[in-house]
Amino acid sequence: MKKGIKIVTIGGGSSYTPELVEGFIKRHHALPVKELWLVDIPEGKEKLEIVGKLAQRMAAEAGIDMTVHLSYSREEALPGADFVTTQFRVGMLEARAKDERIPLSYGVIGQETNGPGGLFKGLRTIPVIIDIVHDIERLCPDAWLVNFTNPAGMVTEAVLRYTNHERIVGLCNVPVGMQMGVAEALGVDGDRVRIDFAGLNHMVYGLNIYLDGNNIKQQALEAVADPANVSTMKNIAALGWEPEFIRALQVLPCPYHRYYYKTEEMLAEEQAAAEETGTRAEVVQGVEEELFALYADETLRTKPEQLEQRGGAYYSEAACSLINSIYNDTRDIQPVNTRNRGAVAGIPAESAVEISSVITKDGPRPIAVDELPVAVHGLVQQIKSFERVAAEAAVTGNYETALLAMTINPLVPSDTKAKQILDDMLEAHREHLPQFFQSEKV
Amino acid sequence: MKKGIKIVTIGGGSSYTPELVEGFIKRHHALPVKELWLVDIPEGKEKLEIVGKLAQRMAAEAGIDMTVHLSYSREEALPGADFVTTQFRVGMLEARAKDERIPLSYGVIGQETNGPGGLFKGLRTIPVIIDIVHDIERLCPDAWLVNFTNPAGMVTEAVLRYTNHERIVGLCNVPVGMQMGVAEALGVDGDRVRIDFAGLNHMVYGLNIYLDGNNIKQQALEAVADPANVSTMKNIAALGWEPEFIRALQVLPCPYHRYYYKTEEMLAEEQAAAEETGTRAEVVQGVEEELFALYADETLRTKPEQLEQRGGAYYSEAACSLINSIYNDTRDIQPVNTRNRGAVAGIPAESAVEISSVITKDGPRPIAVDELPVAVHGLVQQIKSFERVAAEAAVTGNYETALLAMTINPLVPSDTKAKQILDDMLEAHREHLPQFFQSEKV
Amino acid sequence: MKKGIKIVTIGGGSSYTPELVEGFIKRHHALPVKELWLVDIPEGKEKLEIVGKLAQRMAAEAGIDMTVHLSYSREEALPGADFVTTQFRVGMLEARAKDERIPLSYGVIGQETNGPGGLFKGLRTIPVIIDIVHDIERLCPDAWLVNFTNPAGMVTEAVLRYTNHERIVGLCNVPVGMQMGVAEALGVDGDRVRIDFAGLNHMVYGLNIYLDGNNIKQQALEAVADPANVSTMKNIAALGWEPEFIRALQVLPCPYHRYYYKTEEMLAEEQAAAEETGTRAEVVQGVEEELFALYADETLRTKPEQLEQRGGAYYSEAACSLINSIYNDTRDIQPVNTRNRGAVAGIPAESAVEISSVITKDGPRPIAVDELPVAVHGLVQQIKSFERVAAEAAVTGNYETALLAMTINPLVPSDTKAKQILDDMLEAHREHLPQFFQSEKV
Amino acid sequence: MKKGIKIVTIGGGSSYTPELVEGFIKRHHALPVKELWLVDIPEGKEKLEIVGKLAQRMAAEAGIDMTVHLSYSREEALPGADFVTTQFRVGMLEARAKDERIPLSYGVIGQETNGPGGLFKGLRTIPVIIDIVHDIERLCPDAWLVNFTNPAGMVTEAVLRYTNHERIVGLCNVPVGMQMGVAEALGVDGDRVRIDFAGLNHMVYGLNIYLDGNNIKQQALEAVADPANVSTMKNIAALGWEPEFIRALQVLPCPYHRYYYKTEEMLAEEQAAAEETGTRAEVVQGVEEELFALYADETLRTKPEQLEQRGGAYYSEAACSLINSIYNDTRDIQPVNTRNRGAVAGIPAESAVEISSVITKDGPRPIAVDELPVAVHGLVQQIKSFERVAAEAAVTGNYETALLAMTINPLVPSDTKAKQILDDMLEAHREHLPQFFQSEKV
Ligand SMILES: [Mn+2]
Ligand SMILES: [Mn+2]
Ligand SMILES: [Mn+2]
Ligand SMILES: [Mn+2]
Repeated sequence: MKKGIKIVTIGGGSSYTPELVEGFIKRHHALPVKELWLVDIPEGKEKLEIVGKLAQRMAAEAGIDMTVHLSYSREEALPGADFVTTQFRVGMLEARAKDERIPLSYGVIGQETNGPGGLFKGLRTIPVIIDIVHDIERLCPDAWLVNFTNPAGMVTEAVLRYTNHERIVGLCNVPVGMQMGVAEALGVDGDRVRIDFAGLNHMVYGLNIYLDGNNIKQQALEAVADPANVSTMKNIAALGWEPEFIRALQVLPCPYHRYYYKTEEMLAEEQAAAEETGTRAEVVQGVEEELFALYADETLRTKPEQLEQRGGAYYSEAACSLINSIYNDTRDIQPVNTRNRGAVAGIPAESAVEISSVITKDGPRPIAVDELPVAVHGLVQQIKSFERVAAEAAVTGNYETALLAMTINPLVPSDTKAKQILDDMLEAHREHLPQFFQSEKV
Repeated sequence: MKKGIKIVTIGGGSSYTPELVEGFIKRHHALPVKELWLVDIPEGKEKLEIVGKLAQRMAAEAGIDMTVHLSYSREEALPGADFVTTQFRVGMLEARAKDERIPLSYGVIGQETNGPGGLFKGLRTIPVIIDIVHDIERLCPDAWLVNFTNPAGMVTEAVLRYTNHERIVGLCNVPVGMQMGVAEALGVDGDRVRIDFAGLNHMVYGLNIYLDGNNIKQQALEAVADPANVSTMKNIAALGWEPEFIRALQVLPCPYHRYYYKTEEMLAEEQAAAEETGTRAEVVQGVEEELFALYADETLRTKPEQLEQRGGAYYSEAACSLINSIYNDTRDIQPVNTRNRGAVAGIPAESAVEISSVITKDGPRPIAVDELPVAVHGLVQQIKSFERVAAEAAVTGNYETALLAMTINPLVPSDTKAKQILDDMLEAHREHLPQFFQSEKV
Repeated sequence: MKKGIKIVTIGGGSSYTPELVEGFIKRHHALPVKELWLVDIPEGKEKLEIVGKLAQRMAAEAGIDMTVHLSYSREEALPGADFVTTQFRVGMLEARAKDERIPLSYGVIGQETNGPGGLFKGLRTIPVIIDIVHDIERLCPDAWLVNFTNPAGMVTEAVLRYTNHERIVGLCNVPVGMQMGVAEALGVDGDRVRIDFAGLNHMVYGLNIYLDGNNIKQQALEAVADPANVSTMKNIAALGWEPEFIRALQVLPCPYHRYYYKTEEMLAEEQAAAEETGTRAEVVQGVEEELFALYADETLRTKPEQLEQRGGAYYSEAACSLINSIYNDTRDIQPVNTRNRGAVAGIPAESAVEISSVITKDGPRPIAVDELPVAVHGLVQQIKSFERVAAEAAVTGNYETALLAMTINPLVPSDTKAKQILDDMLEAHREHLPQFFQSEKV
Repeated sequence: MKKGIKIVTIGGGSSYTPELVEGFIKRHHALPVKELWLVDIPEGKEKLEIVGKLAQRMAAEAGIDMTVHLSYSREEALPGADFVTTQFRVGMLEARAKDERIPLSYGVIGQETNGPGGLFKGLRTIPVIIDIVHDIERLCPDAWLVNFTNPAGMVTEAVLRYTNHERIVGLCNVPVGMQMGVAEALGVDGDRVRIDFAGLNHMVYGLNIYLDGNNIKQQALEAVADPANVSTMKNIAALGWEPEFIRALQVLPCPYHRYYYKTEEMLAEEQAAAEETGTRAEVVQGVEEELFALYADETLRTKPEQLEQRGGAYYSEAACSLINSIYNDTRDIQPVNTRNRGAVAGIPAESAVEISSVITKDGPRPIAVDELPVAVHGLVQQIKSFERVAAEAAVTGNYETALLAMTINPLVPSDTKAKQILDDMLEAHREHLPQFFQSEKV
């Protein structure tokens, strides 16, 4: 029998780490985390030290038997790990700001996980994740990789297609946000609402909606369509839907769907915000600085309330729930990014989908939903095509493949503009895209 | 043994009719058309008379045993028909001009078969086609419906899904235009080039390209990517592709793909053209007037050369070849719109695809191509989703379904703009959309 | 909020009824059954009275608030029902004996749910079930039909394809028997073992096997292959497997698989048994008589132990668990016969499969398993083909379709023998197959 | 431009070779074969010399410019080849006799390409074919492999799955035999009949049947069902079908289907024949001896008539037609064994099917047929499962995989009997199954 659990968190210096620590503390009885290793790159030392010490104070305050280790070496941290969580950002918020600013300068949506920004975040992140997976296969092959790192769908797709490590789950807080949004619109407690989720990461739909087990989809869609009940994420403008559109769609869209079904308004909104307050990355940079100032306060021994504003609501919830369900073989249902296995008809069996799954000790088992409704099937397919081509570009560093991914992205208006944005962004992110500049390595 | 073939052409007053007549004359030995019935609506009497008389003079001049009948009644014309061809335009060029102008006024592509214009052409046309099919089932159930009427893909989809008449083939001159374009780019005769086509109408791809039977896809794609070799249709601006994009795509796009892969440039081009020369419909109106003036000249006894400029190059070729192959069971290969039957993986077996098919007396048999390349699969799925929702809206006259179709169309930038354009166009085309205004019928 | 549950059991006079009653008594706190209606045909009055009175005594003894009603009219019993369970036998054990004897006389497996016997049980049962479904649609449309009646797979297929009532679940005790068999072979408690089930009714496989959540498939298969650990059902001879075959199969077969993978030995065994002790039906007839003698004893107020020998181990368990999970929306995992929805690749989405499913208030949701292993995929497909053709024959009463079903059944050795057996059995069961003799009705 | 074609025939010493030579002579104008290399193993020298000299005399007599070379080395023969045909028999007729006798001794069908005999023919043949493919990839990578060697379906499956050489086509004379059989039953010329074929090798169905292009399936099935019109192959007993079965099947079975739909009668027939005249292999041994005596006659300069009785009717026709169509890019339709590419729904895209295909210079393109009829889908799937497991056993030499293949074959009645037959046949064919006895190689 296991003595205690070892967790390794890559990108441990993230401002989200206190969320995770709090989650482990709350669940310590059922999920006895004995070692928590926070790993980061040397450039992140200052932040890791601040966050790490806060984590240690939190564990001490809680009086639980969990030691928090800081490390700059996966070689040192990974052996013996039961779960590896990833929450890093290659190029940090500075790179994200470029992902937002450059497309905007071409009149194109600039966003962390969608459009050209999402593509470049994938190009930067996927090679690093694949390196981590190779380390896991070597140093702790039985460990589960719980990936928070965005773009989580593309990253999961890449790991499933380009590595042999089967134990990966991609996580996102969008589905639980949708559940809470519906509950709020209906004026009921969140845990009375259940949703059958299926689709892709940041392109997930609620196929059915239940209150106390009873299917109340129509009522819920009406509530969501009501301009009075606009629900969204911290990082997405709260633009309301056309009620007739939601009624016709017959499924619940996620907040990110606004980039596709309200492209024009979202672009205008982004452009205005960029001018007035800065892009989301620029706003977050300020928030982060404030957070780290708080974290550094040695009298702080619990998660500060201000973290809630950062945008990661339910992240800890999603991660700790998943880890707990795997560890304890609870077989409850959670929405995760996992291998499709035929659950969504028309998506390859080996591709990643975001879908309500039974969580077992042997991993998630997606619940079959058959075909998605005709009207949403096409967009989902288009984004999956994009994700697959983008993942290939990330792995191969092939310029033409990257241009293909950029051009087929539905937010990019032409091959010519795709090429201009691609060239600009390749140059801007050159430092973090060695696979595209290998010939220069000599 | 058949004594001779009876053809009924609905929309017989079209300016294209002389093309068809010339085609039947040229093939008379193998394809003995004995009766050609040109049918039109009473409002089109003037044009039908002009075209009909020209057709009669052409037949007489050719000295063949083919009588040309004019009729304003399907009831009269259909009995005994072997083939029914359709080439009409509900609302005529005036309606097409609205399909172009209204979207443009919202900054959206205005085009006959794509975007909001394509949707409305479908909404107007599908109920009429379905009425015609019901007449065929009653009056000449063994007849083949050869549909030229646009949007041919959506129309074929609607007939396959909403009627029981299996004998329908949708036709388009885009594939043969692509073949000729490749030949021209390579500097060879068109009949030495063969292309494996698959996709949807006006969204068809050349999967492989052969010269004298040898696969020369790479060479052909290079030639197509060369800015010096831009090939297009009469109605589509000849904008060149980014060479790297074509190289990465690895299949041959069709001219209409510009609306999706060069949306921004095409919109700009359309806007400039609308200002300078009028939209395509407005240009064509002028061409048509000139053509009818020519046709009315009683000394004209053959197809006038000016018809070539009208834009229907190869239309007669496609139609007469198809009819000939069905009639004579030639089992040669032609690209047609037909039931998928599993030929393109991921598209429903009962949906329409445009695909290279063996043409037999029992109809087209699509050649299996397995999955489309990843990068194009998504867009094809998205357009098929659109076509299916649009066909449903056309048949049901449901406002929300029409809004759904409009919103999921990749050329429409948001649900809000979709609703605005929809409302405007419903009003503008009210006369030809009775299914959307039935409650007022009382 | 529901006041209490109403259950209607069709075939209430079955000797299994006390199992069900005991199950409802045990779960009364969580599953408050307030009315239990036992319905049977007038010919079954004697048995229904005996069983019904025992059920009433059992409820009284348990001191629960559950009234037991006896009825000979669905019209009377169904209104207001929450669940309808079916456990009848058209033609009773006498018909089953013919299903066993007639094929055997041709040297062919004679079995209740497989081969010619299974086909005829389906032909007799399906029209009755469909009548019941029509009554449910009319009298209690929200009720769940929980079908125990064999052949449960074919019956579920027929209801899914030939009615519009979506609320049907087919049940079988084979999967839980497999779980218990593995536990016994491993020497552990049954509830520590979990199996991922997928396949068809009486042709279900264990794809993965877990002990305390850990995948121990190899170890379990070795134990099952060990001749010392033969596990089976009451009605299936305990013939052992070739160990190398199980090792190569790589999934756990069910006891009924012996009819397909050990056809010859099973036939020999059946022939010997028929001579020595009578067929299974003939043996059961004796057991039933003894049971009813016991039931009739007015001092008996609980389920008698002898019922265990009847062969329905875990039947009550399966039924009450399912009803409880639907009623309470427990979302636990149970193996049931339900619509495939893409869960098993290659089986139509609308066909019935037997598969581990999440049980919700909205019904079972099958867990996706992708493709079955190559070696078992073929047999599963063949039986599904048989089930579909058999269901069509049952519904249409078409002689040729019945011959087709009989001939393609893998246990039937030729079209000629199929015809002989078919003709013999049609004659023998004539009374219960009105759909095949309709022309005589005049 | 090609100067002339080089053909390499492996197993050139076969008695069928004169068929092939005659075919090349007849088509020499369109298909200018300049070199024909007959290759065999040293043990076959005597036969190769006899056949080779006859071939040389035939070419000389015809006065065509085709040289016939004899060789015992693929290394020598393959370079420069355009087409490689294979028609060898590992272990010769002696091995086939064992494939027939051993199963029969267990009361199981003993047949060249079906049941245990077919499995063992595959186990012996596939490794040799794969060696040949590796030689082709090295010595003449652009050559087409035209495989006649049985079991042709399993062999094609193995080449598609276990090599990278895409240019393979499997051939069989069964489809053309079916066409001729239908023509005979209808009393019309064979070339007026066309059949849409789909299925697997020796398990192919006629889905539609045309006379002069008109669908006459019902009429043809009635004729085939008529006991007066039994059509078969030389090696398959001419047992008639139950007319109602054929009517219900609604597709045309092939002669080999008798092994599955008339198993019992075929077994009885085989047993009687084995006793009276010897098994088919034993009969053929006599025929072959007589043929070679004829071939050795130096005055013989054309194909002798007696070859017709050998059983390979239309073999030359099939091979020469295929080679001609590839060489000349004729794009006519022929039934061949090729990659499925989605043409038959439910069969993997990369598996081999036997299907009507367009023959191009780039190889066969299967014509999509969607789903097979329900009633035949199951059996086809079962045989495909068997072929796939058998091909894996042939390549790996794994005993358990071979046992699995044997047990799931529908003609084998149990795992225990499968093991007995397997052990017997492994021993009997030990010399030709090195992959199963590798540990002894030291
Ligand atoms: Mn997310
Ligand atoms: Mn067109
Ligand atoms: Mn059962
Ligand atoms: Mn053959």
